[in-house]
Amino acid sequence: MADEKLKNGCVGIAQINLIAGNLEYNAKKIVKYIKEAQDKELDLVVFPEFALSGYGLDDAVKKFPIIAEENKKWLEEIAKITTKTTALVGFIDTENYSSVAVLSGGKIQKIIRKSVLSDNITVVNGVKYFINAGDNYKNAEISEKPDVFINCSACPSIIQEEKSKNDILSNIAKKYSVPVIYVNQVGATDNYSFDGASRVFDKNGQLSVCAKSFEEDFMVVNPQKDSVCSVSEFQSYNAENKSFSLDYEDDMERTYKTVIQGVKDYFGKTGFKKAVLGLSGGLDSTVCAVILAEALGSENVFGVSMPSKITSDQSKSDAQILAQNLGIGFAVAPIKDMVETTNNSLQSLFNGVEQFWDNRYSQSFTMDNIQARSRAMLLWGVSNEFGSCLPIATSDKSEAYMGYATINGDMSGGFAPIADITKTKLFALARWLNKNGKIKNAIPQSVIEKRPGAELAIDPKTGKPLCAEDALMPYEFLDEIIWRIENKKESYNDMLESQFLYEKEHDVSKEQKIQWLDKFYRRMSTALYKKSILPPFVIVDSPSYDYKQPITSSRINYKGTPQEIIAEKLKV
Amino acid sequence: MADEKLKNGCVGIAQINLIAGNLEYNAKKIVKYIKEAQDKELDLVVFPEFALSGYGLDDAVKKFPIIAEENKKWLEEIAKITTKTTALVGFIDTENYSSVAVLSGGKIQKIIRKSVLSDNITVVNGVKYFINAGDNYKNAEISEKPDVFINCSACPSIIQEEKSKNDILSNIAKKYSVPVIYVNQVGATDNYSFDGASRVFDKNGQLSVCAKSFEEDFMVVNPQKDSVCSVSEFQSYNAENKSFSLDYEDDMERTYKTVIQGVKDYFGKTGFKKAVLGLSGGLDSTVCAVILAEALGSENVFGVSMPSKITSDQSKSDAQILAQNLGIGFAVAPIKDMVETTNNSLQSLFNGVEQFWDNRYSQSFTMDNIQARSRAMLLWGVSNEFGSCLPIATSDKSEAYMGYATINGDMSGGFAPIADITKTKLFALARWLNKNGKIKNAIPQSVIEKRPGAELAIDPKTGKPLCAEDALMPYEFLDEIIWRIENKKESYNDMLESQFLYEKEHDVSKEQKIQWLDKFYRRMSTALYKKSILPPFVIVDSPSYDYKQPITSSRINYKGTPQEIIAEKLKV
Repeated sequence: MADEKLKNGCVGIAQINLIAGNLEYNAKKIVKYIKEAQDKELDLVVFPEFALSGYGLDDAVKKFPIIAEENKKWLEEIAKITTKTTALVGFIDTENYSSVAVLSGGKIQKIIRKSVLSDNITVVNGVKYFINAGDNYKNAEISEKPDVFINCSACPSIIQEEKSKNDILSNIAKKYSVPVIYVNQVGATDNYSFDGASRVFDKNGQLSVCAKSFEEDFMVVNPQKDSVCSVSEFQSYNAENKSFSLDYEDDMERTYKTVIQGVKDYFGKTGFKKAVLGLSGGLDSTVCAVILAEALGSENVFGVSMPSKITSDQSKSDAQILAQNLGIGFAVAPIKDMVETTNNSLQSLFNGVEQFWDNRYSQSFTMDNIQARSRAMLLWGVSNEFGSCLPIATSDKSEAYMGYATINGDMSGGFAPIADITKTKLFALARWLNKNGKIKNAIPQSVIEKRPGAELAIDPKTGKPLCAEDALMPYEFLDEIIWRIENKKESYNDMLESQFLYEKEHDVSKEQKIQWLDKFYRRMSTALYKKSILPPFVIVDSPSYDYKQPITSSRINYKGTPQEIIAEKLKV
Repeated sequence: MADEKLKNGCVGIAQINLIAGNLEYNAKKIVKYIKEAQDKELDLVVFPEFALSGYGLDDAVKKFPIIAEENKKWLEEIAKITTKTTALVGFIDTENYSSVAVLSGGKIQKIIRKSVLSDNITVVNGVKYFINAGDNYKNAEISEKPDVFINCSACPSIIQEEKSKNDILSNIAKKYSVPVIYVNQVGATDNYSFDGASRVFDKNGQLSVCAKSFEEDFMVVNPQKDSVCSVSEFQSYNAENKSFSLDYEDDMERTYKTVIQGVKDYFGKTGFKKAVLGLSGGLDSTVCAVILAEALGSENVFGVSMPSKITSDQSKSDAQILAQNLGIGFAVAPIKDMVETTNNSLQSLFNGVEQFWDNRYSQSFTMDNIQARSRAMLLWGVSNEFGSCLPIATSDKSEAYMGYATINGDMSGGFAPIADITKTKLFALARWLNKNGKIKNAIPQSVIEKRPGAELAIDPKTGKPLCAEDALMPYEFLDEIIWRIENKKESYNDMLESQFLYEKEHDVSKEQKIQWLDKFYRRMSTALYKKSILPPFVIVDSPSYDYKQPITSSRINYKGTPQEIIAEKLKV
């Protein structure tokens, strides 16, 4: 097949991993693939959107115009090597932000701007290419029929959009009866983990070629000649028609690769090599440890068991066994002394404050939080004392929604690997990792089986550590609320009226359901502040990347108000 | 004047303070002013952009469509009371986000969308009004000449844009020879402090009426009859033609009001009443204490002096005197025991880590950070133990740029009042507060006179606490870099080539200047993570509100590379 392709109309698709703002690094990578394309005598080589600049510099170029000026200078030098093959390179244009440069004959021949949908045609070796950038494919209106449609993209791994993106690209092919090339970034920039999976559709809208997911790839295609391929790496998961399920199996590989790439690239691109994390013997820290060991190498991960008097023996031994299984560093650092000393200092201070304020709580979470904060203090200490080392925030998505995490405690760290994965999905991921991870069965079975709890306080009723589900609600129920909001945009009343998976298996009274829903919205509203100071995390499941909501919007009435009540409230 | 206005063409301008998403609160306020307008028999009453919904819900309405649906329901009820006066109310339209509803005769008569610049005309009592929303005034193209141009706005107090906004509005008046009404929100939503200052220009582009700044206001105007007024509350500060100066006098009142309103509304709208902060005797915590006492009332502020062995007697007594002057609560809570216990626990842990990793620093900031984190631990303890109380992060803007603040330490808190004010401006603000604040001369003179330093470490050379300027660079120089970048978009080389204020008074070698500039860009790049987890703060001086830059873009070369070096680097 390779030989046959080396003729008129052959295109190289360079699916590359870039560093935001590191022009030298990115330019050298682009040059490497242009040379490869020229060696192969291809007509064209196509790079992703923002290939030269890297992703996410919208604000930075406005504040530091030199970033755009410089990337133009590098572009000019890159152009000089295009002696045989034409190159399409995504970059930041000073005035128009996302743009694609057409480089050939040693020069920048043309600049195609994302915001402009005219003059997008370039002819190479008799083949007419229509070129556009970013999510502009969504409103592609082509006035003059080309031979091939090209979209240079930077599209993160977002499961909710995968199907619609694929449909739109396929429909463009069908509508204009032209092959479509979609070239995507791979690699992660902070929260955004780009999945690659660049692809070609034939003129009937059938997928004919697909690049690897979550890996750099260089493919030679002939879009006018390629025939239909089987979908392999390309994700076939379709969120649209699904209902909530605890069987996450068909999205597990994507989840795993998204997180691993996110961790690897955040550390690699910021220059950090090592991670230190608390190992509580619970699910969250356990899954984080496995992910870190795989992404950074076991020799670069250190786990610290920091038991308090509430910590069970099972938890302590689970932490140690996990560390042994993974081959990561391990130490025990009891926090008893720190907690006691802090508590003593605080009690004297509280006495002072009580002289001035009379609003002391009769019951508070102060002691629980001191434990979590003492642990974070130790982890940040290790990070300060040892080179190139980041502490890890182990909060998961269910907890982040509920604000069930301690500020300057377990939610504090240089990076939060699992902050966009719900608890029930983490259980599934733990099982999956035991089966498919680099080290099989690293996670002790008891971790996967026990009920999750922060082990910060004793339930006065049972004398045992309080479980998270007692303080919140069953995770199955909680995670389904999150899933319905994020995937179906369901409202409070939609959810009240439909049956949850949990309700199929358990008896839930209407009062109980209302109580859980109320608790969810109330806690979510007061957790807005905590979410605003979460460390960078990998976006895995959130449908909108940069979600931002005013902390002062905590009084939104998500239940809604009947029209007649509104009328009444406005009568004075 | 009032009597004369109560005729054809009279308009009420309702400059109101709103709560994001609190539809009942906002609707009741709108109704109140509609009634007032009807009592006064005005033709029209105009509300700001997003008057009903509040500001900043762009993402939230996509995730929770009920917010937009509900605000439509409230709008319908509000419309019912418009029996005599027409009301223009900013709200969130389900599909078009920022919109203005024209309410009259008990009904929603029309919806004008921000994104659409046609069909914007509404006639009331024979007067033709052209209505638009948001920053759409910037590209106002009017096909049919109206009698009055109205812009419903939600524009935060941003000094850099003040002049250009004013010029654009004035130019619209002149270009079309029509009076212009600009109605703005007042009050703060998280970081955004809206300054109000709604205004009317006559058809010659002259300012004829201006509402109060940073206060709710209801003005009755007759845009076709009002005559030129003198600029009073309206800010006359013009950043454009300025060079950097330590005399911040002409921007001090705006700075003060922006911050006070920001603090007051953040607390009020989230439901918090009290604040606890560390009082180090230094400038940052001192200015924060004065601001909090003014914004929340002295009885709601508690200051804690948390001396370590490095803390000077002067600092201790300055903290106490300040608290007395302000009448806020005060206690001393030494951190010696906590620091020692934490240090002991850490040393054992470090021994464990050293068995596995060989990258321990010979010199580290670990001990410095333990002090700052112990203090934050105490403040968060008070916040957990006493109702409705937030701890305060006292970081300033110069430090935030340089990452000269401790994670989970002084940069941690529920709110950061001064995180957008540079150190030299804070000195000016301290002097201004002593002269113009509610309590005169609250700040001890020694605080304003001493060199700033975190008092976390001893300088081995002098035996005295290390000053911040020794670790960074002179604040005058640092703040001028920040000022030049934010106000003039100057590059590294622009700054290297021009003379700084500091250079006029001190001998600075070129090597020294290069060293400081290099240090600035290096520290700023590695501080991107810290900035990403800063608590909410009041935007005072930053020209872009929601600045976001990838943490992984820390390798940007802000100096740029000569073209011939680029060429060389790409030769393989």
